Amino acid sequence: MSDPECVFCKIVAGEVPSERLYEDEAVVAFLDIAPISPGHTLVVPRSHCRDLLEAPLEVVGAVVRAAQKVAPAVLRATGAEGFNFFQFNGSCAGQVVMHLHFHIVPRRPGDGVAFGWEQGKYGEGEMAALGARIRQALGG
Amino acid sequence: MSDPECVFCKIVAGEVPSERLYEDEAVVAFLDIAPISPGHTLVVPRSHCRDLLEAPLEVVGAVVRAAQKVAPAVLRATGAEGFNFFQFNGSCAGQVVMHLHFHIVPRRPGDGVAFGWEQGKYGEGEMAALGARIRQALGG
Repeated sequence: MSDPECVFCKIVAGEVPSERLYEDEAVVAFLDIAPISPGHTLVVPRSHCRDLLEAPLEVVGAVVRAAQKVAPAVLRATGAEGFNFFQFNGSCAGQVVMHLHFHIVPRRPGDGVAFGWEQGKYGEGEMAALGARIRQALGG
Repeated sequence: MSDPECVFCKIVAGEVPSERLYEDEAVVAFLDIAPISPGHTLVVPRSHCRDLLEAPLEVVGAVVRAAQKVAPAVLRATGAEGFNFFQFNGSCAGQVVMHLHFHIVPRRPGDGVAFGWEQGKYGEGEMAALGARIRQALGG
């Protein structure tokens, strides 16, 4: 349930210091030390699991339940009006610590936080073909 | 449970077309028409709720459960090795459609998808002071 090499397991265990905001029997939330915006919070399960696909649904549910409690407090304390909620799966997706963690990034109008991804378009027939491949993969 | 002005409610009802990938009693998943990467999928609850804070936990749980099924199929069909999983709360956070939706963005090494946010640092004592304010907001 704990990985001796994992920094988030060490934070959960109190072996590595953190600015802890919230904890319950399944989840710990603490401030990210390299915040995208002030109040940027990480919510992690106590038990080690790598990502969204490895985590049992009840573990993700406990993280979401904690986020629903913590995010309003982060917003009140920082004066933010909204937030981004996200997690990454795999190093190619930008995941650095291989212990499931959701980010809460407080946002306010004109805060200068840029979401840098560009959106593209499908060519004619591409979306339907891709949809068919995904439905086939789901059925297989 | 349905908002007549909401485009995602219309997609759920089949009044607006979509490339639908998956559906169950609580959730519909379909391809984003403006993909960050091919296979970019949106997972939405059938019932209209604005965001993560308005949604009952069981609704978010149903969305996560569906995402845990759909994401592996999206990865298989697109040859991706990882994915970003995220949702936005509030227009200041980039939310455009005010119906809770999680994004699944397939990723592969060197795909050129840039995560444009910059991470900052807290000054001395700032993190502890902010942590205290958030814990106070949680307790209040």
